[in-house]
Amino acid sequence: MTYAAPLDDMRFVLNRLAGLPEIATLPGFEDADPDLVEAILIEAGRFAGEVLAPLNSTGDRQGCRWFDGKVATPDGFPAAYQQFIEGGWHSMPASTDIGGQGMPALVSSAVAEMWKSANLAFSLCQMLTMGAVEALANHASDTLKQRFLPKMVAGEWTGTMNLTEPQAGSDLSAVRTRAEPDGDHYRLSGSKIFITWGEHDVAENVIHLVLARLPDAPQGTRGISLFIAPKFLVNPDGSLGARNDLVCASIEHKLGIHGSPTAVMSYGDKEGAVAYLVGEPNRGLEYMFTMMNHARLNVGLEGVAVSEAAYQHAVAYARGRVQGKPIGGAERDPIIHHPDVRRMLMDMRARTEAMRALAYCTAACMDRARHHPDPAVRAPNQGRVELLTPVVKGWCTESSILIASTGIQVHGGMGYVEETGAAQYLRDARITTIYEGTTGIQANDLLGRKLVRDKGLNAGALIRDMTAELDALALTNDADLSAIASAFKAALGAFEEATAWLLARYDSDPREAVAGAVPYLKLTGIVVGGWHMAHAARIARDLLSAGEENTAFLHAKIATARFYAEHVLPEAAASRDEITTGAGSTLALEEMSF
Amino acid sequence: MTYAAPLDDMRFVLNRLAGLPEIATLPGFEDADPDLVEAILIEAGRFAGEVLAPLNSTGDRQGCRWFDGKVATPDGFPAAYQQFIEGGWHSMPASTDIGGQGMPALVSSAVAEMWKSANLAFSLCQMLTMGAVEALANHASDTLKQRFLPKMVAGEWTGTMNLTEPQAGSDLSAVRTRAEPDGDHYRLSGSKIFITWGEHDVAENVIHLVLARLPDAPQGTRGISLFIAPKFLVNPDGSLGARNDLVCASIEHKLGIHGSPTAVMSYGDKEGAVAYLVGEPNRGLEYMFTMMNHARLNVGLEGVAVSEAAYQHAVAYARGRVQGKPIGGAERDPIIHHPDVRRMLMDMRARTEAMRALAYCTAACMDRARHHPDPAVRAPNQGRVELLTPVVKGWCTESSILIASTGIQVHGGMGYVEETGAAQYLRDARITTIYEGTTGIQANDLLGRKLVRDKGLNAGALIRDMTAELDALALTNDADLSAIASAFKAALGAFEEATAWLLARYDSDPREAVAGAVPYLKLTGIVVGGWHMAHAARIARDLLSAGEENTAFLHAKIATARFYAEHVLPEAAASRDEITTGAGSTLALEEMSF
Repeated sequence: MTYAAPLDDMRFVLNRLAGLPEIATLPGFEDADPDLVEAILIEAGRFAGEVLAPLNSTGDRQGCRWFDGKVATPDGFPAAYQQFIEGGWHSMPASTDIGGQGMPALVSSAVAEMWKSANLAFSLCQMLTMGAVEALANHASDTLKQRFLPKMVAGEWTGTMNLTEPQAGSDLSAVRTRAEPDGDHYRLSGSKIFITWGEHDVAENVIHLVLARLPDAPQGTRGISLFIAPKFLVNPDGSLGARNDLVCASIEHKLGIHGSPTAVMSYGDKEGAVAYLVGEPNRGLEYMFTMMNHARLNVGLEGVAVSEAAYQHAVAYARGRVQGKPIGGAERDPIIHHPDVRRMLMDMRARTEAMRALAYCTAACMDRARHHPDPAVRAPNQGRVELLTPVVKGWCTESSILIASTGIQVHGGMGYVEETGAAQYLRDARITTIYEGTTGIQANDLLGRKLVRDKGLNAGALIRDMTAELDALALTNDADLSAIASAFKAALGAFEEATAWLLARYDSDPREAVAGAVPYLKLTGIVVGGWHMAHAARIARDLLSAGEENTAFLHAKIATARFYAEHVLPEAAASRDEITTGAGSTLALEEMSF
Repeated sequence: MTYAAPLDDMRFVLNRLAGLPEIATLPGFEDADPDLVEAILIEAGRFAGEVLAPLNSTGDRQGCRWFDGKVATPDGFPAAYQQFIEGGWHSMPASTDIGGQGMPALVSSAVAEMWKSANLAFSLCQMLTMGAVEALANHASDTLKQRFLPKMVAGEWTGTMNLTEPQAGSDLSAVRTRAEPDGDHYRLSGSKIFITWGEHDVAENVIHLVLARLPDAPQGTRGISLFIAPKFLVNPDGSLGARNDLVCASIEHKLGIHGSPTAVMSYGDKEGAVAYLVGEPNRGLEYMFTMMNHARLNVGLEGVAVSEAAYQHAVAYARGRVQGKPIGGAERDPIIHHPDVRRMLMDMRARTEAMRALAYCTAACMDRARHHPDPAVRAPNQGRVELLTPVVKGWCTESSILIASTGIQVHGGMGYVEETGAAQYLRDARITTIYEGTTGIQANDLLGRKLVRDKGLNAGALIRDMTAELDALALTNDADLSAIASAFKAALGAFEEATAWLLARYDSDPREAVAGAVPYLKLTGIVVGGWHMAHAARIARDLLSAGEENTAFLHAKIATARFYAEHVLPEAAASRDEITTGAGSTLALEEMSF
């Protein structure tokens, strides 16, 4: 499989839509000058295409192998990982104070998209490690930070998140893993499942972050604490000590991401696994949530990334495959000339570009929320991040399943044969709507915590910004922009109606409101994606008028935005109808009648 | 995996919607009396649940194994196949004159749905054989029929369809396999791919139907002839003779249907494979098309069947899994109480029921078209079958992918682990939109041959019938029926607008019309499915008023129809918009810009 980073679109979104030039001026981002960012994008694209992409199907075919508690990753993974950390890619997203390069989340989002497109299974190792790094950097004691962080940031040691237990998935209040105090540390015992990269052979140590209960802990979510449990204990001088009492009991046989070992971890089969408390007791879930926004944005980016890879794969096939004479075409025309193949490719392309715009712009809000000197700028940006993070996570991943499936369809029968590679994208994408919180969880977060809790404050600000774009579009008489504006206006209206309905209904009948949560998440994604696409088309038109070069790209952006407006935005009204008229029928059937 | 045939819904659709009582009175269906049909449904359901379903995951995990031209099917398949033919299930759908049981297509559709739900990979063997039987029964000489048909109908020998070659998939005009005359027979040479059940160990002979070109054949589709090439030659006394010069060169490594061997067949590596011409030279494609309607209906039924199985699997999980406290629910409530889980299950259920109604009612039209004594009844039924067959094929299969994917989502993380079984349905379903003509091919058939060629005659009749249902619904003041009528009216309007637009546009700009072909197929499926669901709800309401028993089923039917109306029918307007305003943007992007 080949992959070429979509640098033109990435640059456009970074610089024109998401505001990188402005973000690069914020305190802490002094190093993110345009030349360096450009160099990073080019080199990352090269690494993704040349090193990671060739291992994607190897990893899928071979998978990971478990034997006696050890896990062998696919051929080529350990060497590629070594190259990855030696090239500094692992530490790149971290801030400078902990050994990273201090790049904005916006820039590291683009780079992360490349790793995920090229090799989703491989990319998860870094993602989980950096999530653990973020949790430790924010909440661990200086001693723990000094002992673990530098090697984790560098990628010499990797990190994991141990949340799920068989009876505790979406509902973490049911966690049972126990932590007993034992001098200056604790002893863990219990089982954790679905531990991504929980055991492997690419690095010498694995630092597990584990949710567990202290003996006197209150029931439910307020009795869960966060612990560090390293695979090998770490001596005071930083060298590796004894093997800890934790073991990978097995790995899962999954639909996809075969190159990523998903471990069942067993803690404390003997004397209890040595573990260190992070922060204060009983605040583990809260600590996990501080890193949740970033992790969820990252999984949303997986949706963008797999979609982009599936699109590139489908385009390459459609350019090369000759089959039948297209209507209005010539005898030996490849199938890309068939109108329905174009429809499929445009659908994949338009949704992917909208998703990329949404994800990067949300990352930019995160940068402003964290780094802008003015609290009056930070606050609304933080509000926007919180509102849209579940949408990035839920909508981009749900869309990626459809897009990857369409990619198979473009290939016809060859798409069903595994060697072609198209099917892997569907299998890989299929986890993204589940882990790091299912789409249902994201939608409940969007509705309950993000829309209703502030009584629509952040949603109102979003609607105002989108209305402003509509006003700007109204000033042109360009045919494409007018068509886009017309579709966007209708979709925005549907979003406003659904938002108002949900705000009114949530208090009086929360079950009916929640029945529309996932349709609302989808509606939000479609409309906000449409906003960014409309904005992008207007910018592209302005650049063309101003004589900008790269005209092919700009014309394509306008054509793609119009496709999105005419083919995707009409779905908004259907989602609105589901929410505002369909709640009763969602809940009507008796349980016994299913 | 467990599977229980949905007998209540099957009976309702057969008897109340599709008109089995009337069809059973048609000439040739004398044996289809209610008692026998009921016995068949019950026994078939038992066989599907007890014999075939337990082998479904075995077949998936183990797959087929190729060695030296031979193929071993999964453990248990040969024995189950033997039971299948001994029970008379194989010959059941055939007409009495060739050794079958003379059941209406309507009844055998319900039975076929069961085989496909329980074990799609297994069911393909019979489906392909009966397709070959149909082609031979209609077009082969009496000598060939006598030699091959009885054992094929009985299932002692199986049949295949050899159409595809590497360069000839959707475009069969590119077929290159050659047939040279050699006395009273021919010698075939060439390669065929994607041959379902092309080689196996469940029966002693395989009768290949092969598309090939005679030496003097015209170019393109008019130069293709149909041949019989048996794996083992058949002596005049019916015993098996020498091994023919054809071999299974390999089998494909596929995303799903692992229990179904997909063969690469090589003909004539030595002296040429002995083959017999079916019918007249150069009419092979035409002969294939005579059986196409039935085969496509059957693949549409696969969509229904996999959806039903995925639904049952998801309901069982949702009833048992406890996770979190649902809004308005209790602490230990299983996840079926969560509003979003109900939404997913209702979505799966409502679409599946609508698809079943569409597929069975189309099969009933086929029975009337073939068996009704009055040509004035046969003709419009034949028209309806032709119009809706690509919709049954395309829409039910496309929907099944979404439904199977939703089934995974209901399972959360467990859905991604293969042992759970949910993922298999998605992997199996994914072929159904591709084989027997991709969705794009179905949509072009619907638009070009079925809608435009008769200038909307059959589509107009369909619209009149649907409008009549709307009129009937208007006579009630039941709240559910009124809500359904309101949504159905809007969706029907969208269908009428899109139909008129396509009829007007096809001549002037066929590329723009064809760009909307797949959205039109989807729109047709949604609206016709909605028609049947509305009709079903009205019947259920009447039966309840008349004091009918099984009230839980009837109430559930009304609730499900209303869900369909409020959650699925709104998609119709979006599809209409795609067709009527989106054609230009589908075709706008320059090829080089993809």
